[in-house]
Amino acid sequence: MKNYIQADPWNIIEEGFDPHLNKISESLFSIGNGKMGQRANFEEAYSGESLQGSYVAGIYFPDKTRVGWWKNGYPPTFDKVINSTNWIGIDIYINNVLLDLAQCQVTQFKRMLNMQEGYLQRTFRATINEGQEIEVNSIRFCSIADDEIGAIQYSLTALNFDAAIKVVSKLDGDIVNEDSNYDFKFWEPVADQQSENGVFLQTKTLKTGFELCVGAKTQIYADGHLVKLNQQGVLQQNKWIAEEFHLDITSGNTINIVKLACVQSSLNHPAEALMATCEEKLAIANTVGFEKLKETQKVAWANKWLQSDIQIEGDVKAQQAIRFNIFQLFQTYTGTDSRLNIGPKGFTGEKYAGATYWDTEAYCIPFYLSTAPQEVGRNLLVYRYNHLEKAIENAEMLGFKNGAALYPMVTMDGTESHNEWEITFEEIHRNGAIAYAIYNYINYTQDWDYLAQYGLEVLVAIARFWAQRVNWSEEREKYVMLGVTGPNEYENNVNNNWYTNYLAVWCLNYTREALDYVKQKDVARFEAILDKISFDLEEFELWQEIADNMYYPYHEKLKIYLQQDGYLDKEQWLVKDLPASERPLNQKWSWDRILRSCFIKQADVLQGMYFFEDQFDLEDIRRNFDFYEPRTVHESSLSPCIHSILAAKLNDEARAYEFYLRTARLDLDDYNNDTEDGLHITSMAGTWMSIVQGFAGMRIKNNQLYFQPFLPEQWKSFTFNIGFRGKILSIRISKGEMEIENTSSEVLDVQVGDANYSIPGNSSQIINI
Amino acid sequence: MKNYIQADPWNIIEEGFDPHLNKISESLFSIGNGKMGQRANFEEAYSGESLQGSYVAGIYFPDKTRVGWWKNGYPPTFDKVINSTNWIGIDIYINNVLLDLAQCQVTQFKRMLNMQEGYLQRTFRATINEGQEIEVNSIRFCSIADDEIGAIQYSLTALNFDAAIKVVSKLDGDIVNEDSNYDFKFWEPVADQQSENGVFLQTKTLKTGFELCVGAKTQIYADGHLVKLNQQGVLQQNKWIAEEFHLDITSGNTINIVKLACVQSSLNHPAEALMATCEEKLAIANTVGFEKLKETQKVAWANKWLQSDIQIEGDVKAQQAIRFNIFQLFQTYTGTDSRLNIGPKGFTGEKYAGATYWDTEAYCIPFYLSTAPQEVGRNLLVYRYNHLEKAIENAEMLGFKNGAALYPMVTMDGTESHNEWEITFEEIHRNGAIAYAIYNYINYTQDWDYLAQYGLEVLVAIARFWAQRVNWSEEREKYVMLGVTGPNEYENNVNNNWYTNYLAVWCLNYTREALDYVKQKDVARFEAILDKISFDLEEFELWQEIADNMYYPYHEKLKIYLQQDGYLDKEQWLVKDLPASERPLNQKWSWDRILRSCFIKQADVLQGMYFFEDQFDLEDIRRNFDFYEPRTVHESSLSPCIHSILAAKLNDEARAYEFYLRTARLDLDDYNNDTEDGLHITSMAGTWMSIVQGFAGMRIKNNQLYFQPFLPEQWKSFTFNIGFRGKILSIRISKGEMEIENTSSEVLDVQVGDANYSIPGNSSQIINI
Repeated sequence: MKNYIQADPWNIIEEGFDPHLNKISESLFSIGNGKMGQRANFEEAYSGESLQGSYVAGIYFPDKTRVGWWKNGYPPTFDKVINSTNWIGIDIYINNVLLDLAQCQVTQFKRMLNMQEGYLQRTFRATINEGQEIEVNSIRFCSIADDEIGAIQYSLTALNFDAAIKVVSKLDGDIVNEDSNYDFKFWEPVADQQSENGVFLQTKTLKTGFELCVGAKTQIYADGHLVKLNQQGVLQQNKWIAEEFHLDITSGNTINIVKLACVQSSLNHPAEALMATCEEKLAIANTVGFEKLKETQKVAWANKWLQSDIQIEGDVKAQQAIRFNIFQLFQTYTGTDSRLNIGPKGFTGEKYAGATYWDTEAYCIPFYLSTAPQEVGRNLLVYRYNHLEKAIENAEMLGFKNGAALYPMVTMDGTESHNEWEITFEEIHRNGAIAYAIYNYINYTQDWDYLAQYGLEVLVAIARFWAQRVNWSEEREKYVMLGVTGPNEYENNVNNNWYTNYLAVWCLNYTREALDYVKQKDVARFEAILDKISFDLEEFELWQEIADNMYYPYHEKLKIYLQQDGYLDKEQWLVKDLPASERPLNQKWSWDRILRSCFIKQADVLQGMYFFEDQFDLEDIRRNFDFYEPRTVHESSLSPCIHSILAAKLNDEARAYEFYLRTARLDLDDYNNDTEDGLHITSMAGTWMSIVQGFAGMRIKNNQLYFQPFLPEQWKSFTFNIGFRGKILSIRISKGEMEIENTSSEVLDVQVGDANYSIPGNSSQIINI
Repeated sequence: MKNYIQADPWNIIEEGFDPHLNKISESLFSIGNGKMGQRANFEEAYSGESLQGSYVAGIYFPDKTRVGWWKNGYPPTFDKVINSTNWIGIDIYINNVLLDLAQCQVTQFKRMLNMQEGYLQRTFRATINEGQEIEVNSIRFCSIADDEIGAIQYSLTALNFDAAIKVVSKLDGDIVNEDSNYDFKFWEPVADQQSENGVFLQTKTLKTGFELCVGAKTQIYADGHLVKLNQQGVLQQNKWIAEEFHLDITSGNTINIVKLACVQSSLNHPAEALMATCEEKLAIANTVGFEKLKETQKVAWANKWLQSDIQIEGDVKAQQAIRFNIFQLFQTYTGTDSRLNIGPKGFTGEKYAGATYWDTEAYCIPFYLSTAPQEVGRNLLVYRYNHLEKAIENAEMLGFKNGAALYPMVTMDGTESHNEWEITFEEIHRNGAIAYAIYNYINYTQDWDYLAQYGLEVLVAIARFWAQRVNWSEEREKYVMLGVTGPNEYENNVNNNWYTNYLAVWCLNYTREALDYVKQKDVARFEAILDKISFDLEEFELWQEIADNMYYPYHEKLKIYLQQDGYLDKEQWLVKDLPASERPLNQKWSWDRILRSCFIKQADVLQGMYFFEDQFDLEDIRRNFDFYEPRTVHESSLSPCIHSILAAKLNDEARAYEFYLRTARLDLDDYNNDTEDGLHITSMAGTWMSIVQGFAGMRIKNNQLYFQPFLPEQWKSFTFNIGFRGKILSIRISKGEMEIENTSSEVLDVQVGDANYSIPGNSSQIINI
């Protein structure tokens, strides 16, 4: 737990330079635009502790899996979004000494992430060469309006001396991932080039063959004049190219360096044209210039905030936190490209490899549905539709047939690519979350066309998987599901995980409904699908048979669903009885001890009750919550939000707020001592859910918006915007009152608690709560 | 399955050169002497497929573990006996062409392992340089009489041409393990030296710092004269040294190369004196000379066969197989050094890393007890006693306390060092096998002193582990044991594995008995132990409470013990219904499918019934055998032997013989298509058990030898020797008859079936069966 980030409603602020916090700040101050992103590494050289990170969405390498004894079905590769050409580097030599904050005295250091306008700013003074003082002010952003463009403005003032300055502005493609399994290099050089438009470096990933061209043009102004390139001009080595400038300034004067970069890849351009298109685009950006690019950035972010902002009155730290969560989500994924998805750490570190997990479907979809245009959520679904064939192949490799699909737990391109057998391999519940996301999307948007066009094929393939994955137990005279890992990853290879069994049956039932729906609405399309996937209507019968005869572990006396067979054989402790010195368990206990303990990493039975709350009465939910919550250590960042929402539903406002706190400032306060590895991007969507689905109690009921709000007593009010079926609403909840503003021109029907309201277009209504 | 090894009672014979079989033969024809061993690589250069292997017992390297996501309690290193200085290399240049069987035409190739006399012989003719024909005859052995000495005699005849010959006789220390996890090099050079006594190379393992000095002296005779070293004489590079000779022979003449080697390590000599002691010993060996060394080898092996041989009349392949099994066991472990143990592949390959598994206690101990002097078995027990402290540390790392010990599943020096979490981590049943071996040893030898001196401390530490490893289930009102893997490694992380639960309670009870025994016999020692280990007699009460209230999964209707909780929830198939194309499962099925199937890799419940057969009535055993055997795929080499013994007990002679066949020629016929990786050394002890405990039905009952023999109908007779409490007996079983020869001078009491016999010293008795 740290406490060095200053509270501010719109900015993340660090004052003073503490090298030990640098890697944490590099994560926190990360910038990105959905297509590329980078950690907040310094522009100038830095020899202190740092994790260099510069990533391009969709550019990955299949690193060889690291496993002791490989077995059939294990993924041979662990695909990871890889560190790519670093374009921010600007080496500054002052009177022949390299500027390096690890090697000089630093004062007035301030780092700020302006979330409203979308840029990173840094200022500091440094004393070098025995008393020579300089001041630096840098601004950097990845343009969200034009997501191939990045920009830096870096000014340096010689405060008390005359300086001979050398500037080496670099493109460095000779980089590695720190987490490379076998110290492989992932990139090979293709070409480099220099022209009046800048320097350009094209590299190519080994194996996957992605090509990346990065161009940069550096312009330096001193005394209002543009400094020419040094005679030497361009330096070039293998996978490295730079522009070099020499200039002199007198004491008190400033130089201004502007470096614009263009990042293009073969994902979006023909590889052979990359160098030319990159040069062309960079030249245009230079014509536009830094200031206009920055102005556009501000407008583009304002536009994002319009639909997504949450304002909290009376708690600036909470205000800062929720905006930070929303900001980082939009830096990670903008939803314009259905080949991309949301890595648990986005572009802020190497952990989880930038790959797609079930986090997207279970946590991120609701956020993007409400805060972004509809196609954003749809693109996340299309991503999985496009991977259907590979999911079927994946299932076939594991012994399934007849078009059954098992989506990967970890993936870049649809193939399973995790690095860890113990947990991931058997977490087949992801398959259910993917089906649930289809339901969720359609329920929210009423985009039923999606079902016929894409969704149904995915649902059937998933249903077929479940129908083969269960087996009939002669012993119980029920269908059972053996050898799974549920969301609670502190169990492994368990039988009859309640959540997974329940979700599987739900999938079977929902797929039947979906088939019926498409048949009714578009019989031609229905028959075309049936033909394409060789669907035999008799499959229905088996699904019905399984749904009717599935086994769910349940404890008659406690009246709770059992997380899995045998859960109550465990020694029953409560988290409150765990000495603080033994937590977090995953750092203090051996793995085998964790496995056989009753402690739960994250919501499991409760995750199911969150998904399907209408299928349980409140007392059911309360009993299960009261049983499981005291056994849950929340060592997954995805856990507190679900508990917060359920606590809110159970009118336990204090606990709802308590769980919210655990998720909202997780990274800002480095709660789990792991922010230096990167931010917990996907759980940030859970933070949003805690407010909107928790405190405001938002649901879709009877095909319209529903709220059951309360105001945390620590707040004066909170206001959030919601996009819903083409309308944008602004909802403000204050003491005893809820105001719903309908910014659209059409009437909005909404239910709050038990009452229904029709709010005319362009008007608002105040409701007592 | 292969069928290229010729049947012969005392020799393993390969005729004809098939490069595709070479790696298999390299395993099969391996030689060793307990202190060192090597695969049957060629002396001359060979560029074809080959696994180079030369190992020295106890010299290992802690290779960094390969795991995707490391968790607390995982072993950081995978310790492996490493490939070490290769001393067999003799490069032969004939008229400037390097002799390499992969590059020339080879005829009359014959490889033979003479098991009676303990040497490897190879003869071949090769055509090189367009029609120039040579003949080679080589003999090689690792002296079992002096286990630091190895010897080669290599003769070459130029059959039809005059030859200028260059011989480079090498010591090559620049070698790697093929299975190195990260391509680390394990050895660094220390020193090299040459003198009239030969060339010497001293190297040192990284991290562990073992030093190894290997010396070799090569002498070449041509025309009855000793050839002098070439002018150049000794060649030397980093970690490599060689003697070079140039000579000419005329057509039809032969050169004889004799190369003696001495291998010494810092395990047995001061590192700083290694070079000197090695030189001295090699000089002595050269004085003795090749022929005398070979004669001594024959005598030493004859001595081993005296106690251990099994003769089978009427089935030469079975005869060859059982001798091969016995021969390889003695090549691997001679029992003179309690720091050494028996790797599952001995010195014949890299797999299983030459480390100690529970195989030793469960399979090898019975073999060595009957076929070797008593101290051999005792040394295997002392090995574990010496690791007690580390086993306690290992348990502490996993969260146990108060002197509880968890012995490692895979170890070199007592620390856990496996490479695979999925199975190994939770196979805590090894702890029980180690206790059982103490019982077994004492039961066989009556060496009760062992208990007070060593065994009791081990037993108490193991009992303490079990007492902490179980937990009370409020739900069942029984003690349960969660999260284990039983001997059946096709399950993982199961609850209440019957075998483990049963073994744990047996350990608690036996430890109580052992404590009582020592207290009675030697109260001073008893109190000293109690004091040393801070034993509180109240621990007894807990043990009793656990023993009285342990939960054992049992099926009332089927009247069988359940392998683990939920076993009958699995879809119940039988192995006979598995298509041949889907076997072996571990090559054809995905790991998750194997895990949730009912198929059993190796005896699990039946392993328990084998250990504790007196505690079950015959019908109990039959029901469990009839239930589990049809579900067992025997994909562990350790499985068929247990089934063979139980089938014999159940008077199912046909099946007893069928299971015997699966184990006896497993490697000779490459049954599992994996002999090229190395031999299944530890399961070879199971083959021996199948004959002695299975066919002959040998047990210890009422503190004397007991037999319940039958003769497989395929055999005319079988004869085996048994060492028992200082006596050597020869037992011959033929049709309807058993002859017991008591070669000692004392009377031997023995029970056969229900009848008791007293056989006077130096006489034999014939019993009708």
